[in-house]
Parts: sequence; structure tokens; C-alpha cells
Amino acid sequence: MSRLGTLHLIPVSLGEAPLERWLPAETQAIAQNLEIYIAENAKTARAFLKQVEVVRPIQDILIHTLDKRGTPTATLATWLQPLTQGQDIGLVSEAGCPAVADPGAAVVQQAHRLLAPVRAHVGPSSILLSLMASGLSGQNFAFHGYPPVKADARAKQLREWEQYSKRTRQTQIFIETPYRNEALFAALLQELQPQTQLCIARALTTDEEWVRSQTVAQWRKQAAPNFAKHPCIFLFQA
Amino acid sequence: MSRLGTLHLIPVSLGEAPLERWLPAETQAIAQNLEIYIAENAKTARAFLKQVEVVRPIQDILIHTLDKRGTPTATLATWLQPLTQGQDIGLVSEAGCPAVADPGAAVVQQAHRLLAPVRAHVGPSSILLSLMASGLSGQNFAFHGYPPVKADARAKQLREWEQYSKRTRQTQIFIETPYRNEALFAALLQELQPQTQLCIARALTTDEEWVRSQTVAQWRKQAAPNFAKHPCIFLFQA
Repeated sequence: MSRLGTLHLIPVSLGEAPLERWLPAETQAIAQNLEIYIAENAKTARAFLKQVEVVRPIQDILIHTLDKRGTPTATLATWLQPLTQGQDIGLVSEAGCPAVADPGAAVVQQAHRLLAPVRAHVGPSSILLSLMASGLSGQNFAFHGYPPVKADARAKQLREWEQYSKRTRQTQIFIETPYRNEALFAALLQELQPQTQLCIARALTTDEEWVRSQTVAQWRKQAAPNFAKHPCIFLFQA
Repeated sequence: MSRLGTLHLIPVSLGEAPLERWLPAETQAIAQNLEIYIAENAKTARAFLKQVEVVRPIQDILIHTLDKRGTPTATLATWLQPLTQGQDIGLVSEAGCPAVADPGAAVVQQAHRLLAPVRAHVGPSSILLSLMASGLSGQNFAFHGYPPVKADARAKQLREWEQYSKRTRQTQIFIETPYRNEALFAALLQELQPQTQLCIARALTTDEEWVRSQTVAQWRKQAAPNFAKHPCIFLFQA
């Protein structure tokens, strides 16, 4: 059997930010040369390819787009076929690191089935960067994705996460659709205990980056942060 | 009040690897110019400063070292005093990203008390890179640090994490001291269900990088991986 190609997991930016802030030079060089990409979103993938200054015309690069409702395994297998001929493939998310809080994991699974090398590249993850910047426990943490949308279910979930954190010291991390940031923030101030540490990390790696970490009691004394529809990460530890 | 200095959270390498593989150029430029560092380990901090090619002699850079048993808050406050005079400070871990699975979070907490800006920089995290490369769920995951050392307690803990993962689809992530990797691997094969997906990620970002993700049943049919005392991350999803 000839050498198998590598599936490169290539991070993209979290927002408007210069490439040298968030991508190591070696990864840029690899991304410049790949001829096949699998993307969560073809439009943002093309913007990324332009930013990394790919060596060939962008229209000559093959970009497969993942289906939001799940791409059939047979389709993924076809897309990854070039790995068996020794050709490398890139996987990119809509923002941040592929296969974290996005549909990319199915592609990685399929590459492992072929026993192809999978190489994860260093890049921006709002989950990890916010955890670092929060000062909350990085020894024990969980990322939950989105909390429930309905107020009752959300309140119950936040209290459950807080009780679990109180028992285990686990940092609780979650995200929200930008237009619901204010509602989630209000629910956090209402449901959490005053001494719980709450961190809000906004627009990481961009010029609008803003991080604050303090007790719920302190948050209650101040005006709400200016969310301005920026992507935010919410973290707390009871 | 004059401008407050920034606490820069600067990632260091996970092992022997060229700088351009794991650190963005802007972060390198910032790290080159900082005059004060707080480090988990002074020796590895100096090796990092040499690798990033700091602009002044290394002996002219002030390096405070965190106490493994916990640094008193009063000491941290003294170390961070320069932030109030507008001077920037760097925080570095022994390996990877500061304040994740290391004692750096206490420093970050103290900076937030001063309301100083905290800036987390992009860099290598074996937890995040292994999650990306695993193909396991990145929508819902938990990092637990180390499992218990004693065999009985470890077996019980692994079964509990598996039951929780089965119920919630949460990916379970944990680490082990390199000389116990073989013992942990054996325990995983013994305790987990055959259909559970188990990933082992070894020596990430170095030339010894190796990642495999498959069912426990498949792992049982093969020889154990060559751990060779490399740092490894273990991940599973039931």
C-alpha cells in the first residue's frame, strides 16, 4: 500500500484579526498548498484561503461542504478517497478549530476508519482561550454547547450545572447565539449564587476582545456588558 | 489612573518542535519583549525564552516561579504590582497553555481582581488538539485531569465516566503520568464496553505524534501502542 494522505485539521479565525495573531507559520504553509478542503461553510472557507494566500487560484481548489443536517457516511467516504492515494486533505470549520462545537468530527471518524494520519493544528479556540483567561479551574472543566432556549428549562439547567460545579469544582463552559447573549446573562444573574465566579469572554482574538471574571454578586452591581452581537463564551465555577 | 498593564498568557511547546509549528508570529513578538514572567517552572521558562529569541539577555528578565503547593495570594499580588504601573507581565506553563491543567489560574484570578486586561494567546493544548484529532464529540466534553491511581478506584471511576458518557454523549478526556500510561491503557481495555470509542493521542506537535481512535473491541485485538514515556491524552465516548 502506498503512503496514506493526511487529514489536516486547519483552524480558521474567530473574527476579524490578522493571520499572524492566530495561526502558526508552518500551518499557514500547509494550508497554502492543499488542493482539497472539506468545509463547514464554503464562503468562510474561501475567505480563509484568500487570507492564507494559497499558492493556486482559489477556483482550482476543490471545496466540499458539510451538510448542516449531517453528511451521509458514504459521501464522506467518497470525499476522503484521495487519502488512500496519498493526497492530503484539509478540514476547516466556520470559525475556530474544526471538530470542536461543529460538524467536523464525522469527517475525522471517517479518516480514522481508513487508518489515515489525522493531524490537528494549533489555532484559536474560543472555548480554550476563554478558559485560560477566566482564572477558573483548568484542572476540571466541561463544555456543554448551548443551554436550553426556553426560560424554565434554561434556569433549571443553569442551577444543575452550578450544583454539580459546587460538588466537584468543575468549571462549566457554554455558548449562546449572539442575539440571546443578553437573555442568558440576565438568567445567570438571576439563577446563580452570589459567590459563584462568572466569566464572560467576548470577541476573542479580535480588536473587540473583552474578558471579565468576578463573582455573581459583583456582576449584579454593574451595568451589563456591551455584548453588541459579538460571539461570547460564558463560564462559571461555584 | 494610568493605563493598566496586560497579563499575557503565553503558551509554550508540548515537546521538541519548531516554534513556527505551534506559536503565531504576533505572540512570539510579544513574548520576545516582556521583561517580567511568572512561570510554573523556571528552567523550562528559560528554554522557552531562548527559543523565542528574546530581545534582551535572559538574565535581565525577571522570572517568578509558582510554588507547586500553591503560591500565597499576597505573593501573587506583589508579583502583579507592575500591572498597576502599566507594565505587561507574561504567564507561562511548564508545557502547553497556561492556566489549563496547571497552577496558573490563581495568577489570572489575581489579575482580574486588579481589573487588569488578561489576554490569552493561541498555542498548543494537548487537550484541545487531541479532542480535534479524536473524531469524538466536540459538542459536549469534559476534562477530568488524572484518574485515581489505585486500581479499584480507577476502575470504578472509568466505569462512572463511561456510564455518564452513555447517558449524555459527553466525550471524557483525561491524562496520566507517562510511566503509568500502560497501566491506564490496560485498565481501559478491561473496564470499558467493547463498542465504546477510545482515542489515544501521543506526543502531539512533536515528531513522535501518533493518534488512533477506534472501538475498545478493535483496541483489544491489537498490540498496545508504544507509549515510550511520551505524554498522552486519553479520550473516550460511549
